[in-house]
Amino acid sequence: MKNELNFSGGPGILPAEVLTQAQQAIGEVPQVGLSILGISHRSDWFAQVVAEAEANIRTLLRLPDSHAVLFLQGGATLQWTMIPMLLLRGSGKSADYLSTGYWSAKAIAEATLEGPVRVVWDGQAQGYHRLPRATELACSPDAAYLHYVSNETVEGTQFHELPGHDSVPRVCDMSSDFLSRPVDMDRYDILYAHAQKNLGPAGVTVVIIRKSLLDHAPAGIPALLDYRTHLKAGSIYNTPPVFAIYVVLLVTRWLLREVGGLEAMAAINQRKADALYAVLDEYPELYRGWAAREDRSLMNVAFKLPTPELEREFLRRSELEGFSGLAGHRSLGGIRASIYNAMPLASVEALCGFMRGFAAGNG
Amino acid sequence: MKNELNFSGGPGILPAEVLTQAQQAIGEVPQVGLSILGISHRSDWFAQVVAEAEANIRTLLRLPDSHAVLFLQGGATLQWTMIPMLLLRGSGKSADYLSTGYWSAKAIAEATLEGPVRVVWDGQAQGYHRLPRATELACSPDAAYLHYVSNETVEGTQFHELPGHDSVPRVCDMSSDFLSRPVDMDRYDILYAHAQKNLGPAGVTVVIIRKSLLDHAPAGIPALLDYRTHLKAGSIYNTPPVFAIYVVLLVTRWLLREVGGLEAMAAINQRKADALYAVLDEYPELYRGWAAREDRSLMNVAFKLPTPELEREFLRRSELEGFSGLAGHRSLGGIRASIYNAMPLASVEALCGFMRGFAAGNG
Repeated sequence: MKNELNFSGGPGILPAEVLTQAQQAIGEVPQVGLSILGISHRSDWFAQVVAEAEANIRTLLRLPDSHAVLFLQGGATLQWTMIPMLLLRGSGKSADYLSTGYWSAKAIAEATLEGPVRVVWDGQAQGYHRLPRATELACSPDAAYLHYVSNETVEGTQFHELPGHDSVPRVCDMSSDFLSRPVDMDRYDILYAHAQKNLGPAGVTVVIIRKSLLDHAPAGIPALLDYRTHLKAGSIYNTPPVFAIYVVLLVTRWLLREVGGLEAMAAINQRKADALYAVLDEYPELYRGWAAREDRSLMNVAFKLPTPELEREFLRRSELEGFSGLAGHRSLGGIRASIYNAMPLASVEALCGFMRGFAAGNG
Repeated sequence: MKNELNFSGGPGILPAEVLTQAQQAIGEVPQVGLSILGISHRSDWFAQVVAEAEANIRTLLRLPDSHAVLFLQGGATLQWTMIPMLLLRGSGKSADYLSTGYWSAKAIAEATLEGPVRVVWDGQAQGYHRLPRATELACSPDAAYLHYVSNETVEGTQFHELPGHDSVPRVCDMSSDFLSRPVDMDRYDILYAHAQKNLGPAGVTVVIIRKSLLDHAPAGIPALLDYRTHLKAGSIYNTPPVFAIYVVLLVTRWLLREVGGLEAMAAINQRKADALYAVLDEYPELYRGWAAREDRSLMNVAFKLPTPELEREFLRRSELEGFSGLAGHRSLGGIRASIYNAMPLASVEALCGFMRGFAAGNG
């Protein structure tokens, strides 16, 4: 298997130069002389790491001062609890959730422990093949918030327009397409993303939150589950995952300096996705895309082959050529090519070539 | 600064060979061919990592089958919430806590959010210089559990006998002396330790729990905060910190193969601590140990010098010789030498030499 042909759904591929720099830091951080695994999270050096990682994310997203950037643990899963603890518990309101795939459905189950939840749209009966149009959604004008997942990693669907009303807090799980394209942050109130897709190693989650949401937090929230704790402590309330945050810094540097920002990243991601979907469209009988055309994800290209035998053969032969991570999520099966930010266009072209060759042999 | 002279309180020193192996895995895991940062947590390879890490911890501790080993996120801090959620919430009982230092006091504040807490012993007014004798403690025979911290990292005190009744669940924060010496696991019901002292990088916490405690867990606990979730999922409910767990595996291999187990580790740790405390005892006017003699920690040697000016001079000159991490915790000041498992005896001897030289110049 080869790093540059790693199409895993996550933890996924990271830029080669980031791996080199991370490797160096394990031995000895330049200018410090210590392994990053033994550097105190209270050191001046690490304070600079957190500050620069935050500054880079702010620059990349053109983030307004109204929003804070936090680095937390517990993955997206812990956000499914922390968000309703803050916004739903004791609010007297209900929360609107969109059920658009495997991950959004899991978020709903956790929110119901904290208060009433209204599922505004549920695509499960339709197999989560498509996303709702904005005009289909009857979002409550007085909901505590609207929660949705911008990119469903398993099914390979992605919102290309913003759901909800701007007057209701918009909460988005952006784990699998964070920093893959520009977003208008002023229209989001909470955005969260675990790192292991586009941003770094598993073990750290970025949360961007409109600070005014914290003005009316209910009492009695455990300190670690209270965003105010982390805001006040600058993300160093307890020992943070130092190494994972450092790699996030390296990835944001790469986005700024090598890629040239999110517009440039989005253009590259569009070319990669276009190339792969073109192969699906060339061989629609063999490569049966899961997502409806207008909801196709630029991050995860999910498809099935006509039989499980053919899928196994596809995976077996792809592995012989050095590809990896192409098996679909265990809940859906089939094939999935995850083409996160760090996936080179050349690798996508190599996969397209393999797929055309496989199709020629099975036409 | 030099890795082998890193006396940081945590994140702290790791064995040199573990750093080398971790570095290699960032580039490419042997036999896999991918960077560990891009390997799926659902891969066969990572299942083996978790299984071997658990098996090694079981071997090192001679852990009975009654107990499960879990790898979680959120540090010791999240355990301060998860434990009372499981054992205190709705139990109709109160929980006994020992307040023996900075960290145990913080655990108490979180437990009170879940139910009544009784502080059986509070050493704060005495400056946390000493720990209670077992005979001083009036632990409740019907408490939901007894919580204590086996080693107070800040003050440098360590329990050398077991507090509490065996009939009441004994819950121990062993973050800073886990795997530093043999323990009789049958007398513990929950033991937890974040990794960044003796075990690996920040970002993973090991929890050892008597499985029968889970039989009567209250309803409504968020999935991620429910030990049953993690037990059922074999520590892979959501994406775990893959890299941190891999380094834990490397450290447990080092303990088993290089050190030769916990009896051998304890003997080495005793020699290191004896060497340092001997210097304190030689120069009691200059190096004023914080801990009472009978409660001295084998992991953290905390002391003050007669004036803040002398302490600054001590730190300045130690840094010139390559030592680092010797400043005391920000809450206490002074000097602290943390001599975790991976700290070589030779480095402790080098520090003793420096301290004798410093004393000679300031006698």
